[in-house]
Amino acid sequence: MSFTLKKGFTFGGWLPALIPQYPSYSTMRNDTSHPIENVESDEYGLFQAYLAGIKNASIANPNPSVGCVVIKNNKIISIGCTEKWGSRHAERVAFAPLSAADLEGSRVYVSLEPCTHMGRQPPCIHLFENTGIKKVVIGCEDPNPVVTKNGIRQLQNLGIGSFNSYYSNEIKAWNYPFFIQQKEKRPFIALKWAQSLDGCLADDNNGWKWISGEESRTYAHWLRQKYDAIMVGIGTVLNDFPSLDIRNLKHPELRNPLKIIYDPEGKIFECSLEQQENIMQKTFSPGTHKVVLINANILNNNKRDNSNWHNKMYNNPEIHFLTLNYKEENILAKNIFNEEVTAQISEILNRPLQSILIEGGSRLLSSFIHNESFDVIHLFIAPFFLGGEKHKLFSKEKRGFQVYPNKEVALEKRLHIAVQEKLGNDILIEMIPK
Amino acid sequence: MSFTLKKGFTFGGWLPALIPQYPSYSTMRNDTSHPIENVESDEYGLFQAYLAGIKNASIANPNPSVGCVVIKNNKIISIGCTEKWGSRHAERVAFAPLSAADLEGSRVYVSLEPCTHMGRQPPCIHLFENTGIKKVVIGCEDPNPVVTKNGIRQLQNLGIGSFNSYYSNEIKAWNYPFFIQQKEKRPFIALKWAQSLDGCLADDNNGWKWISGEESRTYAHWLRQKYDAIMVGIGTVLNDFPSLDIRNLKHPELRNPLKIIYDPEGKIFECSLEQQENIMQKTFSPGTHKVVLINANILNNNKRDNSNWHNKMYNNPEIHFLTLNYKEENILAKNIFNEEVTAQISEILNRPLQSILIEGGSRLLSSFIHNESFDVIHLFIAPFFLGGEKHKLFSKEKRGFQVYPNKEVALEKRLHIAVQEKLGNDILIEMIPK
Repeated sequence: MSFTLKKGFTFGGWLPALIPQYPSYSTMRNDTSHPIENVESDEYGLFQAYLAGIKNASIANPNPSVGCVVIKNNKIISIGCTEKWGSRHAERVAFAPLSAADLEGSRVYVSLEPCTHMGRQPPCIHLFENTGIKKVVIGCEDPNPVVTKNGIRQLQNLGIGSFNSYYSNEIKAWNYPFFIQQKEKRPFIALKWAQSLDGCLADDNNGWKWISGEESRTYAHWLRQKYDAIMVGIGTVLNDFPSLDIRNLKHPELRNPLKIIYDPEGKIFECSLEQQENIMQKTFSPGTHKVVLINANILNNNKRDNSNWHNKMYNNPEIHFLTLNYKEENILAKNIFNEEVTAQISEILNRPLQSILIEGGSRLLSSFIHNESFDVIHLFIAPFFLGGEKHKLFSKEKRGFQVYPNKEVALEKRLHIAVQEKLGNDILIEMIPK
Repeated sequence: MSFTLKKGFTFGGWLPALIPQYPSYSTMRNDTSHPIENVESDEYGLFQAYLAGIKNASIANPNPSVGCVVIKNNKIISIGCTEKWGSRHAERVAFAPLSAADLEGSRVYVSLEPCTHMGRQPPCIHLFENTGIKKVVIGCEDPNPVVTKNGIRQLQNLGIGSFNSYYSNEIKAWNYPFFIQQKEKRPFIALKWAQSLDGCLADDNNGWKWISGEESRTYAHWLRQKYDAIMVGIGTVLNDFPSLDIRNLKHPELRNPLKIIYDPEGKIFECSLEQQENIMQKTFSPGTHKVVLINANILNNNKRDNSNWHNKMYNNPEIHFLTLNYKEENILAKNIFNEEVTAQISEILNRPLQSILIEGGSRLLSSFIHNESFDVIHLFIAPFFLGGEKHKLFSKEKRGFQVYPNKEVALEKRLHIAVQEKLGNDILIEMIPK
């Protein structure tokens, strides 16, 4: 499944809507090939529906965040976006403020095919019946087999439905975690890192705070908002104490993601007083759930420990220790998110875990690459050289067993570059397996 | 001096004109912001002049390869490009087939400011006098202080000259070696390599023939044609025996560049019979001059050797041993192209050495980066992971003394990304120091 997105579009959304410093809508106009100016065109309507869908990015999960726009007399008269899981879908939101007279003769644009089945909400398809709506244009098919093509067929039976593929790749990319989950019944895995030109994720002496520039960091924060959970390795936590929260968005900050610490050997139990304080203040700051993934035997050994630090973590209702369920030895990063762990995290989230963003360090990222356990890579490349050995992918100098890129498959199936954008003075590349 | 090029433009020229597989002229149209369709616009004329200038890329060196287009009644009636050094400039070539009646009322577009001084050719500026030409539009100022602004001023005095900056960055980039040479009185240095996402230039086991795809390799061959000389380290020669010639161009193949082997320690004298054969067949294949850069004492020691291999090289009129003139010990790659070496290579070339393309290996490239001795970097990134330690920039595992990126300056002045293009399924990034 390889596809390429139009300029300005990413797996995180449309950049001018996300990055304050990005060239504005009107500047983009001349550079893009999408006709966002012609109000009479279906492409205009679908673009507006796409933009509307960005609004509730994270809170609609695991529903796709769909946009719906109603246009009458060449003016947008209503906009809707899928609400919090269990609440209304985009079409119902868009139609709510409109009278029957408003809908009569209008054009309706929906980014994703309307649902035809009873879920937590009644099927949207009935909303279009006996309305006098002139036409309904759908931007992308729903991957849910119960819905696929049924929504469009039923609209066609009403004599008002059509499908327009102009933005279908962009809509698919926006809802990619939903697509993968529908197709493969597992959570979506995104890898994200920033590196220098020579492939270093950090300086050997940890002397570099930021690899990438402001625009890249804003987009990276937006990604944290879009995905359900962020995972980092314990090494990154003990070195950097990342807060893993969202900041500096152009878009309203809707919620922080759940944080997952990958700590099979339970290093978190052995940290110094100073590290403990930093962890509690930053990585474990209150307001979101924190999950520590740890080997069962290590957790059991530490359960008997009654130290202050242990108790502080055990008694914190936001901190959860979950055990890894490896079937084989030494299979780093493979099958971490099996059914059991996924169900446990879903319970903590109070909704199905749909997506995880893995941010580092280089060893954890390397192991996901090694196992080909990812659906998309968000890579920021900053134009300078760092040198060093420790913080490269597949670095020999990392303790523990070594992971390698899987060369046999790499030659045959290079990744597909779906997105390549300049973000400030960095390069953003988004890649998917071919 | 940092500038960014419009889509499709690189330091090597306009991609659709260079890469057979690149999206065609007409496909590009919708994606580019330059109005190449409107025959009446000055931008159209300048774009055509730019394209005309690509024609004699390498053979015009060290002159800038300028293009001149004459338009009358909205039709191009003549096109000229600077000829071989010492021969005619673009304006003279374009005017040659035209009668006085043809020129009368025409519009003339020249990519670079016409010269006003007597060089190997009479000043072009006089060509415009008493012609009845309606207007002359210049795309970029000549950096030669004898000419800068004089050409335009004299055209303005004639009442027909104007300057249009629409493509001035693109023209400057195309003629960048000329610009640098005019300003800094030294040859231009370009670095070029292809790497995996994790920064490897080759596999540790040398099991990978190509890092980058076909489009990238075509562009890389074109760059070899554009620059006067290519340099590689002796390690690369002894491992890969690169032929360093040009192949598979969309554009006619005009000439192969001079080849420079950087071999301070004279490893070339110690190679096996099989290596000798490979070198003679590939890297030292007949038809172009080959220069070996070597430390004076090493050369002197080897001069006394009377072996077959030594004599074979000494007696080959295309193979030249030049001695490095380091002023300090261990200053790898710095001041290689000082006045003396530059003059010697210019004598071999029979024209001033204006530009050198350095292609590898990773150690030689690292040393040029370390010393900040480069004017542009052409970097191809292929979307896969290689792992390994030997063929990374700044690799610890390379023998000899270690080079590092210059971190103090890297933070302050990251490189400027002037070009970022998708070439096939690779990324092309072209960067200049800020």
